[in-house]
Amino acid sequence: MTRVQDLNLVSMWNLDRDACVQPSLSDQFSRVRAGTDAIAAPLSPEDCQVQSMPDASPIKWHMAHTSWFFETFVLEPYAASYRAFDPKFKVLFNSYYNGIGDKQPRAERGLLSRPSLDRIREYRAHVDAAMRGLLRSRAQAAAAHSLISLGLNHEEQHQELMLTDLKHMLSMNPCAPAYRAEAARAHQNGAAENSAPAQSGSAWSSFSGGLVEIGHDAKSTVQFAFDSESPRHQVFLRPYRIAKQLVRNREYLAFIVDGGYSRHDLWLSEGWDRVRDERWCAPMYWREDHRAWTEFTLHGTQALDPDAPVCHVSFFEADAYARWADARLPTEAEWEHAANDSAASTSPDVLAQCFGSRWQWTASAYLGHPGFTAATGAVGEYNGKFMCNQFVLKGSSIATPEGHSRVTYRNFFPPEKRWQFSGIRLAK
Amino acid sequence: MTRVQDLNLVSMWNLDRDACVQPSLSDQFSRVRAGTDAIAAPLSPEDCQVQSMPDASPIKWHMAHTSWFFETFVLEPYAASYRAFDPKFKVLFNSYYNGIGDKQPRAERGLLSRPSLDRIREYRAHVDAAMRGLLRSRAQAAAAHSLISLGLNHEEQHQELMLTDLKHMLSMNPCAPAYRAEAARAHQNGAAENSAPAQSGSAWSSFSGGLVEIGHDAKSTVQFAFDSESPRHQVFLRPYRIAKQLVRNREYLAFIVDGGYSRHDLWLSEGWDRVRDERWCAPMYWREDHRAWTEFTLHGTQALDPDAPVCHVSFFEADAYARWADARLPTEAEWEHAANDSAASTSPDVLAQCFGSRWQWTASAYLGHPGFTAATGAVGEYNGKFMCNQFVLKGSSIATPEGHSRVTYRNFFPPEKRWQFSGIRLAK
Amino acid sequence: MTRVQDLNLVSMWNLDRDACVQPSLSDQFSRVRAGTDAIAAPLSPEDCQVQSMPDASPIKWHMAHTSWFFETFVLEPYAASYRAFDPKFKVLFNSYYNGIGDKQPRAERGLLSRPSLDRIREYRAHVDAAMRGLLRSRAQAAAAHSLISLGLNHEEQHQELMLTDLKHMLSMNPCAPAYRAEAARAHQNGAAENSAPAQSGSAWSSFSGGLVEIGHDAKSTVQFAFDSESPRHQVFLRPYRIAKQLVRNREYLAFIVDGGYSRHDLWLSEGWDRVRDERWCAPMYWREDHRAWTEFTLHGTQALDPDAPVCHVSFFEADAYARWADARLPTEAEWEHAANDSAASTSPDVLAQCFGSRWQWTASAYLGHPGFTAATGAVGEYNGKFMCNQFVLKGSSIATPEGHSRVTYRNFFPPEKRWQFSGIRLAK
Amino acid sequence: MTRVQDLNLVSMWNLDRDACVQPSLSDQFSRVRAGTDAIAAPLSPEDCQVQSMPDASPIKWHMAHTSWFFETFVLEPYAASYRAFDPKFKVLFNSYYNGIGDKQPRAERGLLSRPSLDRIREYRAHVDAAMRGLLRSRAQAAAAHSLISLGLNHEEQHQELMLTDLKHMLSMNPCAPAYRAEAARAHQNGAAENSAPAQSGSAWSSFSGGLVEIGHDAKSTVQFAFDSESPRHQVFLRPYRIAKQLVRNREYLAFIVDGGYSRHDLWLSEGWDRVRDERWCAPMYWREDHRAWTEFTLHGTQALDPDAPVCHVSFFEADAYARWADARLPTEAEWEHAANDSAASTSPDVLAQCFGSRWQWTASAYLGHPGFTAATGAVGEYNGKFMCNQFVLKGSSIATPEGHSRVTYRNFFPPEKRWQFSGIRLAK
Repeated sequence: MTRVQDLNLVSMWNLDRDACVQPSLSDQFSRVRAGTDAIAAPLSPEDCQVQSMPDASPIKWHMAHTSWFFETFVLEPYAASYRAFDPKFKVLFNSYYNGIGDKQPRAERGLLSRPSLDRIREYRAHVDAAMRGLLRSRAQAAAAHSLISLGLNHEEQHQELMLTDLKHMLSMNPCAPAYRAEAARAHQNGAAENSAPAQSGSAWSSFSGGLVEIGHDAKSTVQFAFDSESPRHQVFLRPYRIAKQLVRNREYLAFIVDGGYSRHDLWLSEGWDRVRDERWCAPMYWREDHRAWTEFTLHGTQALDPDAPVCHVSFFEADAYARWADARLPTEAEWEHAANDSAASTSPDVLAQCFGSRWQWTASAYLGHPGFTAATGAVGEYNGKFMCNQFVLKGSSIATPEGHSRVTYRNFFPPEKRWQFSGIRLAK
Repeated sequence: MTRVQDLNLVSMWNLDRDACVQPSLSDQFSRVRAGTDAIAAPLSPEDCQVQSMPDASPIKWHMAHTSWFFETFVLEPYAASYRAFDPKFKVLFNSYYNGIGDKQPRAERGLLSRPSLDRIREYRAHVDAAMRGLLRSRAQAAAAHSLISLGLNHEEQHQELMLTDLKHMLSMNPCAPAYRAEAARAHQNGAAENSAPAQSGSAWSSFSGGLVEIGHDAKSTVQFAFDSESPRHQVFLRPYRIAKQLVRNREYLAFIVDGGYSRHDLWLSEGWDRVRDERWCAPMYWREDHRAWTEFTLHGTQALDPDAPVCHVSFFEADAYARWADARLPTEAEWEHAANDSAASTSPDVLAQCFGSRWQWTASAYLGHPGFTAATGAVGEYNGKFMCNQFVLKGSSIATPEGHSRVTYRNFFPPEKRWQFSGIRLAK
Repeated sequence: MTRVQDLNLVSMWNLDRDACVQPSLSDQFSRVRAGTDAIAAPLSPEDCQVQSMPDASPIKWHMAHTSWFFETFVLEPYAASYRAFDPKFKVLFNSYYNGIGDKQPRAERGLLSRPSLDRIREYRAHVDAAMRGLLRSRAQAAAAHSLISLGLNHEEQHQELMLTDLKHMLSMNPCAPAYRAEAARAHQNGAAENSAPAQSGSAWSSFSGGLVEIGHDAKSTVQFAFDSESPRHQVFLRPYRIAKQLVRNREYLAFIVDGGYSRHDLWLSEGWDRVRDERWCAPMYWREDHRAWTEFTLHGTQALDPDAPVCHVSFFEADAYARWADARLPTEAEWEHAANDSAASTSPDVLAQCFGSRWQWTASAYLGHPGFTAATGAVGEYNGKFMCNQFVLKGSSIATPEGHSRVTYRNFFPPEKRWQFSGIRLAK
Repeated sequence: MTRVQDLNLVSMWNLDRDACVQPSLSDQFSRVRAGTDAIAAPLSPEDCQVQSMPDASPIKWHMAHTSWFFETFVLEPYAASYRAFDPKFKVLFNSYYNGIGDKQPRAERGLLSRPSLDRIREYRAHVDAAMRGLLRSRAQAAAAHSLISLGLNHEEQHQELMLTDLKHMLSMNPCAPAYRAEAARAHQNGAAENSAPAQSGSAWSSFSGGLVEIGHDAKSTVQFAFDSESPRHQVFLRPYRIAKQLVRNREYLAFIVDGGYSRHDLWLSEGWDRVRDERWCAPMYWREDHRAWTEFTLHGTQALDPDAPVCHVSFFEADAYARWADARLPTEAEWEHAANDSAASTSPDVLAQCFGSRWQWTASAYLGHPGFTAATGAVGEYNGKFMCNQFVLKGSSIATPEGHSRVTYRNFFPPEKRWQFSGIRLAK
């Protein structure tokens, strides 16, 4: 289940959680596809049309592209009698797969008023029907199993992007409209989940390091993982400490008040250029009105909650904050090793907020694990070709669909991006 | 009545033409406002949302901005009890009136998914109701008469822009969708109207020049005119000849075939830079497919009609074509003097296609007529502040609302723009 | 003789003024070529190398290009046995003549460390020797007479550009170095010449207008003129007044103090965009240090002389100033007619500072005079192809070579440019 | 000794190699400073003035900045009576040390015609004299020892940049001038040194991996190292093979012929964008003339030597080539471990061309070694603040000063840069 909100958790749709334990592929398919529709349900055709920046895509495009993925990589190769809904969609909804052919330029996705939102809902229904047919055929479903799993995980990623892109789009509107209004009750839930619990004992968890294993074991079939999470491999770590909690707004405010955004010595050179060129002085959606800080959320503008984990910071800001706090960001291996330990332990002395709160910037560049090889064919373009000028984020956020989180997960964004639900966990 | 099409005239809505002879201001108001709604009627919320380039605006924005104009310049000053529909619209739908206050950045008009199209229709209804109330009060209507006329002419200008902006947006869609499908019958009408009739005698009309008068006489109250059309003034002209017909596609093709787009000596220096930087090789919406030329129109892609007047050329192209044809573009004064004569004459030896076909680039920069002074207050920003780096176009186009054409009219665009229905009339 | 300075006139080289009365073409050639060398004489190879912006050129390039002009348009066609100094210079020193062939990209002229300044001096000597040979042949000199005159006037234009480009380059150096140091004595002279004399009577000269003639009569062979100054033609003018003096720094300061740079209503729309994008708050080379205004000049930084005519303003600033002063800029025809009258009169009631002080922005776009036709061949690219998006400046400046001024002269620059010695004369 | 050339080694100056064994700091100082002067010796003031792109700096600037480094970090803190040569140089020749204060904008270094080259030579002499004084004082020299060493290594880095920047500048000149003409004899030497010797046995060296150590041991005082090379730390490596030789032009040509630059599947996504946006179709200085490949070198344009190691490729090209060759780039740790082994071995089965040929792109992002901390104060800006969006290059090139190479050295550049002497070593 996708947790939809910023500060607040909103229960958007009810699903049988028991069914999640060992759902069949068919059930998974229904659940994931319904999740996408549920996110779009409260939105108007206009809301689904707008592309607010080249990094973002229209909601409509996400809805179509995730269907295009099943059509292109599952139905066309595996469903013999499948007839494409509309041959032109091949180009319109290809994202970046050069192996598939032409594509609508990324920055021009928002120019396509046609097909309409209704037409794209028909497209989804067409693909859903064909997929259900395929899933009923045991042989076809088995043959396409890993690609269907990939398609579902792909669609879950886009569910998160729908929320981040929507939030950015609404934030560009001077009226600061809300995605959904039911903030009140949600806030109670959300505050509980997202605010940091009172700390018991030290703020730091200690690890002795040494030769540890991280990454996904491709031979394991228990859980889905993207190709970039493999192979499982050994890494040598020095002893380290890692914060049990994420950095909170209260703490980040102290950094601001201390002149964090005006001290060049805290910043990487490129980060400092950004601070000045884009006049950064706070996280992305913060505003200061009459000395009170507010934050734009999917429920509209809200007073800043000092206890919530800081959100919408770039790698540059996370890195500068860490330097100011006399700490550093954890490496990917440190984070993954600590999170693994935490998952296995019942001790209170473990990491909190690993998942479902904020993506956590690491000090590691997004490169292939030792021995990584991309899948063959167009699907191989999924991850590998982006291994350059990006940093790894670990964990997951409040916008990540439930069941989409795991310790080996490798999210990645360029170091200046801020529109994702990204926060900070420190290490030493 | 707005003539809607490219090659073809489409009768979009029926109005009692007799009523146009001396319509009351109230009738004019109803007619113009209905015209805007009629243009938008066949469009989806998505179609009305998209802004395809900074020069264009969303249809929805045009619908709201024209209402904002009445609200700001007529209702608020003259309708004592008027209550603004939504105070936030003040900023959202201000175009460029610095005197009014803040405005949504021009290039970001397409980011506003809210207010929705439905909400903007409510806005229009709200303004219409208030305006009808004001028009019923003879005193108020008289006091606001000239501003109401300005608002109606303003809205007619936006009706033309709705069509040019919509055309550009649809052209960016690789599926080349049509605005309206009923091309067949319309084509018959349109071909008749837009194609050049057989020429009788010389292709040129001759004028002896001397001291002539052009411009609008501000003391005349017979007809509305924008401030930039005044004052009427004397200009000295040398003898000149001016083409009776607009340049046709057939003739423009000869220019292309003769290497017109690859001969630097035909072009102004800035024009030549454009040709190379933007790889111009034909008018804006032309495409060459397997050696056959097509043109994108509001009815979708059509075979190029060799007898239709060339359309969607920039000043640079018009100027280069004229040089190639061993001619030149007329000055504004030459055009206006010749058109005046033609209007007064029943001789066959006069200018055809002055109005309702293509805007006609002149060799004159858009500057104030001698003695020009802009209106005071924010309304004075209407024309005067754009008198720089633009060229005058005379006449009107198939997209110009009927009744919106006159010989003193001064349309203007920068010399590189091509998305208007602009063509070429030669002079010598 | 080129007058070299900003506020101050510097006598850079002594020439026999009597020889100027009716100099032979050969004498003119020697004088002009020596003038270019004199400007470069105090400069180092480094000074002559730098290109400080795409609009400017290295001094070295000016020295070579003016020689290239004689080589290309005079020596190659008319001096049978002429051998090019270096065939590669054909490309390196072509400015914008597409008819001649390839050219070094304008913005990359400063990348050419080779040929060295010394080598370019050899090039100049080579061309000078060949030209002197040609000038000794009466037949050849007669055949090439008009092209040689063109070449000399061309070189005089570049002499002025050498000073404006050099000034811009030195201004980019935080050390604000001087071109020449002998400011002291020169200042005395300069102040006398450039400051406005006490006004006698009205500040305005009145003209009754009517049908007047302006432009160069191409049949006249008395004086050289560029093709763009022809033909002489009739223009109808309304009665007008024109300021006898140029606007002074003192007056322009009042505009600044009155918020001239922060009142949108004073500016053309494009001008207002410039003010904000480039943060204009004063003329180009002005700086405010501890509440005292200074101006960067070719003698280094100087205290602002309140009585000197304002300099280095764009058309946008001139236009905004005029609006603030409840006046306007004169049209080209108004200026030329008034200057003609002034030249013919001995009355004190005439225009001062027409020449040798500041170029004067007019309200007229730079377009061809009625009946203008460019010369044939590559030389025809000299003026005509720039008739777009530029405004006419009349008169001449302190940097204009003596003998290079005349009432029909049409200088032109885009409305945002400020690095020329441009000022303001008002009209009403 | 800096090896100056592309394909060819040029002996630019003779130094007593025996003196290099254990030179005193004072001898080192003299040697390094003389090296900089020797590189500039054949150049004109114009050559030393030009900045051909923002990434490059004028030769003159390099000469001054390396002196500024000694002045700022050694003389001012340690030489009590030192008087700055010119206080303005503090700003003019600061590169990127925010801790020091203002600086001339990087892209505008080429605008400073003053100070002249001669003046900068005086500046060097002034700093040299003061440094020699300081070096004579045993106490001062000891106190400043590590900063002097840093300054010398810093200057050696700039010696290499002088050659890469100069090469780029000369390559922008359509005349393709040579830095030094004595190519003939040098070519013989150079070919011997730079071409790959005949391979004996396998092309690959095999390593069993495991837990290895890399990085500089900061406690060792034997050899200078930059802060970024520390600390020495353990890394776990899988078994790997690494090529004994660098990729040669002959092999890279096969990649080109096989369509390497037009197959998207070989490229990282950002790399593919570069290929298309900048129309890459060969390494930076290659040109194809009439089906023969040439390469621009510091000796001018030369026929491509098929046996020389490929040079001036970006990380993107190195990475795409490796994928095409069914291999990959080595990680930094793999390279360093293998090079260490090779240095210790007399076996023929080791890596050749580690040093003095081409910088070798690795698959490793330039980030801090585990436990890295930057130096305090402005000197700490030397390396750490650039640890973002760059890749590590190992080894050294023909342009690297002799004695400046070591296995722990970490060079770094953004993945799209090509103007360095960078080549390719494969791994598997």
